[in-house]
Amino acid sequence: MFEALWHDWLQANLPTHPRLALGFGDDAAVADWRGDPHCVLTSDLLADGVHFRSGQHAAERIGHKALAVNLSDIAAMAAIPRAATISLLLPNSCAKDWVAQLYSGIFNLAAEYDVAIAGGDTNCWDGQLVISITVVGQLTQRGKLTRSGARPGDAILVTGPLGGSFLGRHLDFKPRVQEAIALHRDYRIHAAMDLSDGLTLDLARLAAASHSGAELTLNTIPIAAAARELALATANSTGEVRDELELEQVALGHALSDGEDFELLLVTPPDVADRMLDQQPEGLQISRVGEMVAEQGLWHRGPDGRRLPLPANGYLH
Amino acid sequence: MFEALWHDWLQANLPTHPRLALGFGDDAAVADWRGDPHCVLTSDLLADGVHFRSGQHAAERIGHKALAVNLSDIAAMAAIPRAATISLLLPNSCAKDWVAQLYSGIFNLAAEYDVAIAGGDTNCWDGQLVISITVVGQLTQRGKLTRSGARPGDAILVTGPLGGSFLGRHLDFKPRVQEAIALHRDYRIHAAMDLSDGLTLDLARLAAASHSGAELTLNTIPIAAAARELALATANSTGEVRDELELEQVALGHALSDGEDFELLLVTPPDVADRMLDQQPEGLQISRVGEMVAEQGLWHRGPDGRRLPLPANGYLH
Repeated sequence: MFEALWHDWLQANLPTHPRLALGFGDDAAVADWRGDPHCVLTSDLLADGVHFRSGQHAAERIGHKALAVNLSDIAAMAAIPRAATISLLLPNSCAKDWVAQLYSGIFNLAAEYDVAIAGGDTNCWDGQLVISITVVGQLTQRGKLTRSGARPGDAILVTGPLGGSFLGRHLDFKPRVQEAIALHRDYRIHAAMDLSDGLTLDLARLAAASHSGAELTLNTIPIAAAARELALATANSTGEVRDELELEQVALGHALSDGEDFELLLVTPPDVADRMLDQQPEGLQISRVGEMVAEQGLWHRGPDGRRLPLPANGYLH
Repeated sequence: MFEALWHDWLQANLPTHPRLALGFGDDAAVADWRGDPHCVLTSDLLADGVHFRSGQHAAERIGHKALAVNLSDIAAMAAIPRAATISLLLPNSCAKDWVAQLYSGIFNLAAEYDVAIAGGDTNCWDGQLVISITVVGQLTQRGKLTRSGARPGDAILVTGPLGGSFLGRHLDFKPRVQEAIALHRDYRIHAAMDLSDGLTLDLARLAAASHSGAELTLNTIPIAAAARELALATANSTGEVRDELELEQVALGHALSDGEDFELLLVTPPDVADRMLDQQPEGLQISRVGEMVAEQGLWHRGPDGRRLPLPANGYLH
């Protein structure tokens, strides 16, 4: 009977949206799709103990993250998010208020990004909490933005400081949806993706999809304050004495591979990168972190200027 | 690294589809959406031990079911399924071949129903198997078919025998997609849904959505052979001696409330029902099982002809 109660609760609490020709409560939802005839689809599944910890994190933040990771994928395509479905698998022991707060986190972000909640599926079981969300979106007139258009000589950019998201940003980040649409409209971007698994791992994927390689200039990687905080906390907890330079190296490691930054990774012609760095549009902190090269793989320069391979050891969930 | 391996496997094994302007491997998929500007969305999540048992059921049948329940929802809207996303949460102990067979069950059904697999998300954890699928579809020129259009005096129809799906049909059923589109094209249907939770419970929902009631004629319910088989097996296993009539009553109970029949429940004007019963279109076994009434609730007639309430005790997952 638990699912039936949730059905009634959702019927009463689901936000409505003018885009829905038919909302929650029927066999499927119907969304109006006028405009560009391309449908952008993405799904992300989050599980307790893997992507969040229900015992530690507030339900609303977990709900926020579950939708935000999907919106970040939509942003990576420079598409407009339109509608979402939410499937939940709830522990039988879950308190109703807690689940209502989880939904709240989803609904608030959906309202902020004008996403219609088109329904979903609520189930209960003996296991842990699982949240599976699908977002459908539409392309703008500029068309799609993919991972595969990067060319040797292009500049590699990121839209904000990286690393240490584990300290909280992985739950509370704002997906770069409007920013991506504006950048795609105003600049010639060859390739893009969102940074979910760490700069090195994600860049290696983008490079592979573009049949080329990438060389990072490690002293230009923007390191988030949280990455430095994490480096210091780890040093303190292990009792190891580390100097400034060593701490900075550890923080750089976090920036390169922690993941869940959900900033945009952009690849543009060098002159477009110059313009973007100069203008810093959309309130972003854009940094140039390297360039695409012909040799496949991930690279950096050693102290003597020689090209060395860089391991793509990003965070894997 | 397990997810990364699955990513590579999917990249190599995912079926391609001409509808995909961009398939698996980027941040999101892009499907071409020309035609009716309405997007139909549905999501269903299946969990081990709740909707199937991975220890008992073949992986391919589980995969088939996970997509089929979604296609059945699309059928209930008389829509055309277009694309699907698949999110999996795999036990760490899952054998690769087993998962490949699970995907096989999904891919084969997708091919049969011309559904583009637009990607998804593969994760691993310590818990049990979870499969979350979303299907997007498009309406035909006839528009949507909902639960809410039934009127008192309308006939209630079902497209096949009911009950006992637990013996195997709940895994292997064929969603009524083409049939629903053809019926919606050729007949005036006031309301429809798919039978997932049992005739009584689902009909009670349809009646409530239509702000009316429904009266079933219990001696016209088409009872599936599997429902009778289940009645007999239960009697044999408990050692109770039951006569024909008692067994038939138990079988009727299965037909009314087992659920997972995935036949269509249709409500039409009486003359349309007559025509449909006469013509039996699309190779279906259509039966008339009752009529819509003004008094809200679910009803049947007692031996003396008086209207009695019928409990909506359908199977709840």
